[in-house]
Amino acid sequence: MDNLIKSKKTIKGVVLTKLKQIKDERGAVFHVMKNDSETFYSFGEAYFSKISEGVIKGWKFHKEMKQNFCVPFGGLKLVLFDNRANSISRGEVNEIILDDDENYIRVTVPENIWYSFKCISDDYCLLLNIANIKHDKQESLQMDLCNDIIPYEW
Amino acid sequence: MDNLIKSKKTIKGVVLTKLKQIKDERGAVFHVMKNDSETFYSFGEAYFSKISEGVIKGWKFHKEMKQNFCVPFGGLKLVLFDNRANSISRGEVNEIILDDDENYIRVTVPENIWYSFKCISDDYCLLLNIANIKHDKQESLQMDLCNDIIPYEW
Repeated sequence: MDNLIKSKKTIKGVVLTKLKQIKDERGAVFHVMKNDSETFYSFGEAYFSKISEGVIKGWKFHKEMKQNFCVPFGGLKLVLFDNRANSISRGEVNEIILDDDENYIRVTVPENIWYSFKCISDDYCLLLNIANIKHDKQESLQMDLCNDIIPYEW
Repeated sequence: MDNLIKSKKTIKGVVLTKLKQIKDERGAVFHVMKNDSETFYSFGEAYFSKISEGVIKGWKFHKEMKQNFCVPFGGLKLVLFDNRANSISRGEVNEIILDDDENYIRVTVPENIWYSFKCISDDYCLLLNIANIKHDKQESLQMDLCNDIIPYEW
């Protein structure tokens, strides 16, 4: 999985899991998550983000939500930044490619990580998030794409 | 939602829930399910079925699995048949259209219901299932599309 991340080291708590696609002549089954998966904590909410070609969303941050991302349609570049005071990976940026083909993976993003993403496929992509808590504006933060804190230029 | 079902009455235990799509110029958020949704019981597994254009899958049956279906890409016709001995809707067939547009709905299918589905969009469609238990061959049955039990011709 190392080739999926352009970084010296993976941010602590971030987990990449290769997911199976079981194909036959009629289509396929795409695995996502089971209740005994390593990164399943509890079920809060499942929802899709549909992101149009070229669009960048972010930066976002959750104080409590642990997210499990996968891309069943199209392709996406996910960028993570660790600004946690006592983290051994503080300051680290991870770039991760998710798609519905060779990079069909689940990315687990713990709470307190800044993240943003860009659709890199034609037309649009779909990002599924299976989160441990329901969406709640009170526990989330946002920052402009251009800022003085995150050392990443989109 | 009545227009989505071609049937005299909905099979007992089957629930159709209209889901929100919150759109803006960058894309959208598609709701799927929360842990306080009416038809959420427990989280067993989430997976996608990718179904190629024109393909019909089924008949299938689960002794224990309660399924929650939605279609975030393309379109699908789902057909359900109730053969439960003591059901007030025994003998009933429901045809339900799910898609990523006007018919973006969640369909909850209880255990002990026969079901089959066909991709009705170009190229392929994606069906997300959030099930209350993990996939387990031991609790599922299959029947040929042509049979003497289910009064439905694909």
